[in-house]
Amino acid sequence: MNDEKGIKDGSKKHRPMPTVKKQTDIFFMQRALELAAQARGQTSPNPMVGAVLVKNGKIIAEAWHQKAGEDHAERIALKKAGKSAQGATLYVSLEPCCHFGKTPPCVDIIKQSGVSRVVAAVRDPFPQVSGKGFDVLKDAGIEVVEGVLEKEARRLNEVFFTVHEKKRPFVMLKWAMSLDGRTSDDWGHSKWITCEQSREFAHRLRSWHDAILVGVGTIIADKPKLTVRLRDFNRTQPACIILDPKLDTPPDSPCFNEDHEIYIISSPIKGIALKNKAEKLIQKKAKIISIDAHNEKFHIPTVLKELLQAGIQSIFVEGGRCVAGSFFEAEVVDKIGAFIAPKIIGGFAPTSPLICNPSCNKDFRPLQDVAIKTIGSDVYIEAYLTL
Amino acid sequence: MNDEKGIKDGSKKHRPMPTVKKQTDIFFMQRALELAAQARGQTSPNPMVGAVLVKNGKIIAEAWHQKAGEDHAERIALKKAGKSAQGATLYVSLEPCCHFGKTPPCVDIIKQSGVSRVVAAVRDPFPQVSGKGFDVLKDAGIEVVEGVLEKEARRLNEVFFTVHEKKRPFVMLKWAMSLDGRTSDDWGHSKWITCEQSREFAHRLRSWHDAILVGVGTIIADKPKLTVRLRDFNRTQPACIILDPKLDTPPDSPCFNEDHEIYIISSPIKGIALKNKAEKLIQKKAKIISIDAHNEKFHIPTVLKELLQAGIQSIFVEGGRCVAGSFFEAEVVDKIGAFIAPKIIGGFAPTSPLICNPSCNKDFRPLQDVAIKTIGSDVYIEAYLTL
Repeated sequence: MNDEKGIKDGSKKHRPMPTVKKQTDIFFMQRALELAAQARGQTSPNPMVGAVLVKNGKIIAEAWHQKAGEDHAERIALKKAGKSAQGATLYVSLEPCCHFGKTPPCVDIIKQSGVSRVVAAVRDPFPQVSGKGFDVLKDAGIEVVEGVLEKEARRLNEVFFTVHEKKRPFVMLKWAMSLDGRTSDDWGHSKWITCEQSREFAHRLRSWHDAILVGVGTIIADKPKLTVRLRDFNRTQPACIILDPKLDTPPDSPCFNEDHEIYIISSPIKGIALKNKAEKLIQKKAKIISIDAHNEKFHIPTVLKELLQAGIQSIFVEGGRCVAGSFFEAEVVDKIGAFIAPKIIGGFAPTSPLICNPSCNKDFRPLQDVAIKTIGSDVYIEAYLTL
Repeated sequence: MNDEKGIKDGSKKHRPMPTVKKQTDIFFMQRALELAAQARGQTSPNPMVGAVLVKNGKIIAEAWHQKAGEDHAERIALKKAGKSAQGATLYVSLEPCCHFGKTPPCVDIIKQSGVSRVVAAVRDPFPQVSGKGFDVLKDAGIEVVEGVLEKEARRLNEVFFTVHEKKRPFVMLKWAMSLDGRTSDDWGHSKWITCEQSREFAHRLRSWHDAILVGVGTIIADKPKLTVRLRDFNRTQPACIILDPKLDTPPDSPCFNEDHEIYIISSPIKGIALKNKAEKLIQKKAKIISIDAHNEKFHIPTVLKELLQAGIQSIFVEGGRCVAGSFFEAEVVDKIGAFIAPKIIGGFAPTSPLICNPSCNKDFRPLQDVAIKTIGSDVYIEAYLTL
């Protein structure tokens, strides 16, 4: 019989990676994902991560990463378990890190803990990790299984993966429309299409993003505050981004009275009139980002690049319909959240939630991973445009 | 003690109508409604009716009305039960008739049967019955309870009640739209928005109506057959109604090759050109109904009146969007059935399912009795505009 050392040395070459996912692995990974999701909206720029330690079929410790700068999930769980981690299986929703960030590498404490098996949902897209964490563990003779509930884990950290893989912020479009497919009447009135519960849920969606984006038309027509208004919300408000090529945002807009960062995307500020407008908005603590616009439309990938540089990793696009259309035309929409209220608005005008070049979608592109639920009297449909 | 005769004589005045609905009454009436619905689409111009005979808490016979001219539900159930009906309770989803129609009055057989209690869901709106059926039963000393699941019973026979109470056919609007609220792209292409299961269900909805109505624009753009295409459908096809003020329906439209009645609603046929067009369509066995049109729009209440006279009690309006809007403007829409597909169409044009005068609905009128279900990959929302 081989001694333990011998098995460890040969582990990388001779032990095949299990490919069939065990039901128990799926069960405990599901729990790790649930734990991770506890911190939704609180970990940026870090991903949400959950960890579960299992020994003899029982959970002996569990944890989730709560905030950037604080301990990672697996570290908390292993600290909780102490010596009993010996021989246990660690389920973690993301590949453990192997580099020094704000905290030391997790692979070190895993090795020290005596854990015999690590099951991870997905590889970390961060170039300094990305498979290297697994390698370190395997080299230490720990059995590593990856890819259990991978898709779910990617969806959970859709923002994190989009930022690292696509080098742009994650974009979610939200709209609320009537049963006849209108987001406002012909006069632009759009308030109270949806029920109270839907409006509360829309605030929840806002709270899960780094920024809320609207066009200047929405600022003028609806005078929104663009804040998260939820009783249990006590974090930093999402930033507020206004697409405003001619700097028409009124300096007395209600959004300036709120405690959030405001970015205004404008055309390059040339001429005295535009300079005067810019000065007034800067006095209101708006940060102005100048980007070339053609026919008053910005090149959306450039806008996203600038915003990512400003530290914004996820954007909740709330309208209007031309703004939504411009993101759609640029093919940078990751997710759609549509509220449908059982009401009829009627009218003659094109008041659909999305106005865009029709040729950009001749195939009636179907959406992915469609989830349908009722909220109060409304229907809420959430779906992805990207895998 | 009063003798039985005495009680009977005094029954109308002294026995109060029970107002609290018993749970058992609701339970058995639910069954009567289920039975009634077995004949959906088959009883026109009669209502659907179900009957359940209950003795000592057990169902001893049940039946439903299958077709106009055949026995009513209560008669079939009582025939099945024979002598055991003595002392039983009869649940019937509509007030029993007391007049000679194609069959003799049901109240006579109920009295003869020895049934001691009759529970009915709703009063018959037919003027020759409407409460008189109940009176006859009460006069015979039978306890009568009415109004158990009344709303459900009215909805079940929504066509019958609309015809008798509003003196016009029942109108259901149907549309299929994308998640961005469009029923076609900017070029008018609309095929395959919904999934196969939704399209099959749309055929089921057609089968439950006396007629399918479209505008001539739909005839020209989509070349529809306007038939029910379901494996289990072997009844007469619904009639086909085309709103066509200038008689632009091409005589080679596919709908003329099908085995259904075709009504074309046109402006008064004046001038040789219109007469020539009419002749060609009449050769195709179309029946032309002439009604004044203003700006190529018909007065919809007049259209409905003419169609009711032609024997059409229910109309399934399938488009296009201006036709749907004209019914909505006329406030004669009873029910809406909207399919929503998780797809994005995009575009610039007003391609909402309903185009109508916006002033006719400034309040974003909420709909009643909204039912939401998923069909294949789509959402189907059904709702009422009328109570």
